[in-house]
Amino acid sequence: MNEQLLLKNIRNVLIRLEETIIFSLIERSQFKRNCIVYQRGGFGSAVGDDSLVGYMLHETERVHARLRRYTSPDEHPFYDDLPPPVLKQLNYRENPLQANTVNVNAGIRAHYESVMVPDLCSEGDDGQYGSAAVCDVACLQALSKRIHYGKFVAESKYQESPDTYDKLISCGDTEALLATITDAGVEARLLERVAAKAFSCSSMLLDEGLSRAFPDTAVTVYRDFIIPLTKQVELDYLYQR
Amino acid sequence: MNEQLLLKNIRNVLIRLEETIIFSLIERSQFKRNCIVYQRGGFGSAVGDDSLVGYMLHETERVHARLRRYTSPDEHPFYDDLPPPVLKQLNYRENPLQANTVNVNAGIRAHYESVMVPDLCSEGDDGQYGSAAVCDVACLQALSKRIHYGKFVAESKYQESPDTYDKLISCGDTEALLATITDAGVEARLLERVAAKAFSCSSMLLDEGLSRAFPDTAVTVYRDFIIPLTKQVELDYLYQR
Repeated sequence: MNEQLLLKNIRNVLIRLEETIIFSLIERSQFKRNCIVYQRGGFGSAVGDDSLVGYMLHETERVHARLRRYTSPDEHPFYDDLPPPVLKQLNYRENPLQANTVNVNAGIRAHYESVMVPDLCSEGDDGQYGSAAVCDVACLQALSKRIHYGKFVAESKYQESPDTYDKLISCGDTEALLATITDAGVEARLLERVAAKAFSCSSMLLDEGLSRAFPDTAVTVYRDFIIPLTKQVELDYLYQR
Repeated sequence: MNEQLLLKNIRNVLIRLEETIIFSLIERSQFKRNCIVYQRGGFGSAVGDDSLVGYMLHETERVHARLRRYTSPDEHPFYDDLPPPVLKQLNYRENPLQANTVNVNAGIRAHYESVMVPDLCSEGDDGQYGSAAVCDVACLQALSKRIHYGKFVAESKYQESPDTYDKLISCGDTEALLATITDAGVEARLLERVAAKAFSCSSMLLDEGLSRAFPDTAVTVYRDFIIPLTKQVELDYLYQR
């Protein structure tokens, strides 16, 4: 099996991304919600008809696209009108995924802006729009990478038992497929680990309210959003396979 | 006194930036050193004659400049050929600093690339150039913000005892000025706090070697680089005042 598909290696990437997600959520939580940064037209025509966060995300993706970020199979852009890479194609390790068009970034962004940010941040406006938007870009990119890694998880599981999966896929039995890709023990351990990491990090924060609330918020983000959406990516990928 | 100059408020900003710096250093430390990203010409003419990190930093600053990041008195760009803001000038709180041209970013970048990255990262090349460069931009921006905040520290101290400072400045007594701005107790507590925070964060890392080494590295960064360079900024600012 391709090295990137070994479950041990996938697990290490996912554990590694827990820190990135926790750090970026904590960073965002230290600014107020600043609703205006998510409103189209909130900053006038200078940022097109996009919101400030959309503009910053789009411009950041343009820079990263030129540096060939989205030629990597584990990276998925939020915008689809990005410039081509200016760097020569890297010899990426052989892409272990089957060709697919799965991209759930629109859903990630909608949920992030309308549910996660209100949960994470105090209501109100502190005028730190640019700083908040920089944090939003980091959060969105980290969430996107983590959730789309479900493709590697799905391909790995498929290659371990192709006959089982082929049967479930061909008869369209989504419920059975979902049961087959789910490992309740792994999910429980993940949530415990996230709680512990979020506690370690948040215990050092000066803001006591934030420090107390953050571990629960991080667990909620994983339990109610990252885990189910990762499984959706796994299902979508398997059905396209 | 202007609210931004109250020592209590300055202290909160500086403590808050400790997390940002620790998070961004940990993120960078999880990739290898990847020397090539710091070499001019390492990625050919597509990134001008800059290094990959320079190119990404420059492009990021262009985006942030258009969103008026560098109109804020606590932000300092690494490049001086940035585009003007596309957004209308914010009504920033009155700028409490005296006009000045102090910008030590060239020194920050040189030290970061040649000393901090080799200390933080394992030697070698993991091919994760874009990811490493994204982390480098975050580290450099966090270090720059923290170190240039010395201007607020210096202005605050000056306004508390203008006569003392005017005398030392006018006779150019740098040694006495340095002694006056130094508070050994505050520095000792800062280093203890950074050690504790770095330990909290690094204890959750999967890589045991990194987890063990990181708290010392973080303390070294503060003791040998951030604290002395912040004081240099304070001195430069006071002499220009």
